[in-house]
Amino acid sequence: MPDVMFDRIALIGIGLIGSSIARDIKALGLARQVVISSRSADTLKRAEELALGTSYVTAAAEAVRDADLVIVSVPVGASEAVAREIAEHLKPGVIVTDVGSTKASVIAQMAPHMPDYVHFIPGHPLAGTEKSGPDAGFPGLFKGRWCIFTPLENTDPAALSKLKAFWEALGSRVDEMDPVHHDKVLAIVSHLPHIIAYNIVGTADDLETVTESEVIKYSASGFRDFTRLAASDPTMWRDVCLHNKDAILEMLARFSEDLAYLQRAIRWGEGDKLFELFSRTRDVRRSIIQAGQDVDAPDFGRHVLDK
Amino acid sequence: MPDVMFDRIALIGIGLIGSSIARDIKALGLARQVVISSRSADTLKRAEELALGTSYVTAAAEAVRDADLVIVSVPVGASEAVAREIAEHLKPGVIVTDVGSTKASVIAQMAPHMPDYVHFIPGHPLAGTEKSGPDAGFPGLFKGRWCIFTPLENTDPAALSKLKAFWEALGSRVDEMDPVHHDKVLAIVSHLPHIIAYNIVGTADDLETVTESEVIKYSASGFRDFTRLAASDPTMWRDVCLHNKDAILEMLARFSEDLAYLQRAIRWGEGDKLFELFSRTRDVRRSIIQAGQDVDAPDFGRHVLDK
Repeated sequence: MPDVMFDRIALIGIGLIGSSIARDIKALGLARQVVISSRSADTLKRAEELALGTSYVTAAAEAVRDADLVIVSVPVGASEAVAREIAEHLKPGVIVTDVGSTKASVIAQMAPHMPDYVHFIPGHPLAGTEKSGPDAGFPGLFKGRWCIFTPLENTDPAALSKLKAFWEALGSRVDEMDPVHHDKVLAIVSHLPHIIAYNIVGTADDLETVTESEVIKYSASGFRDFTRLAASDPTMWRDVCLHNKDAILEMLARFSEDLAYLQRAIRWGEGDKLFELFSRTRDVRRSIIQAGQDVDAPDFGRHVLDK
Repeated sequence: MPDVMFDRIALIGIGLIGSSIARDIKALGLARQVVISSRSADTLKRAEELALGTSYVTAAAEAVRDADLVIVSVPVGASEAVAREIAEHLKPGVIVTDVGSTKASVIAQMAPHMPDYVHFIPGHPLAGTEKSGPDAGFPGLFKGRWCIFTPLENTDPAALSKLKAFWEALGSRVDEMDPVHHDKVLAIVSHLPHIIAYNIVGTADDLETVTESEVIKYSASGFRDFTRLAASDPTMWRDVCLHNKDAILEMLARFSEDLAYLQRAIRWGEGDKLFELFSRTRDVRRSIIQAGQDVDAPDFGRHVLDK
């Protein structure tokens, strides 16, 4: 088990991600004190009932006082407000990081407010589920998952190493990327899939020829996979859409262009074009399983879970 | 355990669905003889190695001789060829059914060839996984899943009852529907999700700004859910697209219209519109879980399966 890595960690935001970090810190003994902060009194109360930290405060400014590590886990649209609030209460040498799904925007929102004596290192653990809130977190969420850092030019190597070691202690694999490239990668592997899932569930919900109860009753034939992604936190995903606009619009344009091609092939009965695409995509799945990024159990092993 | 229901069952096609039916028939003792037929010598050999039936023949015409129940489990585009081949070898009073994902087309392909003394009752079990072939089947695949029948006008009630009882013995819940309505329902709950999944996996595979290895490496953040559907049998899905064209094009048009609305909301930063949709879709997921059509385990319980 790793030793204590930080004397005092402040967690700003205690939803699915924040509360999973809190559970791991506690289980692994990575900090002497863990101060938890949430704007919502209910959420903060729940965090205390779950004994996720050692103290609980509403004000982020108060939470960060004397902290050696500050982890901001809020919807990305709230990043600037948090940065503004905590800036002048940060102690010299503190590492400030975040877990936001978009990086260029978070940097633009937070970096200008960070004092020179603070190590601001943006990060993004690629982990989560469709659930949200402090009850949704669990220990081990980050195990085997990537955590991508998008360090600024003048980042202190020692601080970056220490932050990486922290995430590695949580079981993450760590990686570095340029923030703009990060935002493009995430636009295709995460943001577009969620947007498409939200969209198709909305379309199904609005049909006149097929009733909502039919959609629900027969959802097991494919549709239900999309509903999982479309059950994700609306605030988080609204903010992702607003804060990674350019990359998302670029990927959406590509997706729609490809869909028009497919639609035309269906209309004109071009079976060979359909077969070519439907065969090629099988290889991608195979590679993902080989890379250990998904389980190979048919139907995600739902038949096992059902029993 | 149910008694023997049929003296001789012929299974035409022994892929994921056919071989799952075979396994259930054997486990439950529903027939004295099970004749298995496949055009592919390799598949037939594998079925025999797996001891899925009591005899194995290449020719469908031979397989159906003296059968009381014939189940056609082939890609829907092969329905007419099978109907032509078996028609004059069917014994009077036999029940002929299928498992195809589109019903109007299968009826148009098969019904004209069926002699008067045959009970032709189209059916569609809503069950499956992304795997295919005789090794992919397993007992219990149909348990708790719907099987939809689209009987023709002159269907014999006794034959329909007997076929329903067979599927109920396999654990299915049975339902009846008009074939055209069936095709619309399936277009939205199954065909569109698969087409969208194939499309997005294709888009990701073709990008210049994000490499294929990045897509695979970081797929766990949403994308991998789509790759499961996009790993389904290419022949089956090509045929579905070609044989449910009208309903699929109708649903694709609605989907694209809704996506354009969403895209515009992203471009113009209309967070309220995004939030409204992203909240509404959560309820659909909740209803699906309440209806017992999916497990409530976060992330489909992959964290459990990983261990």
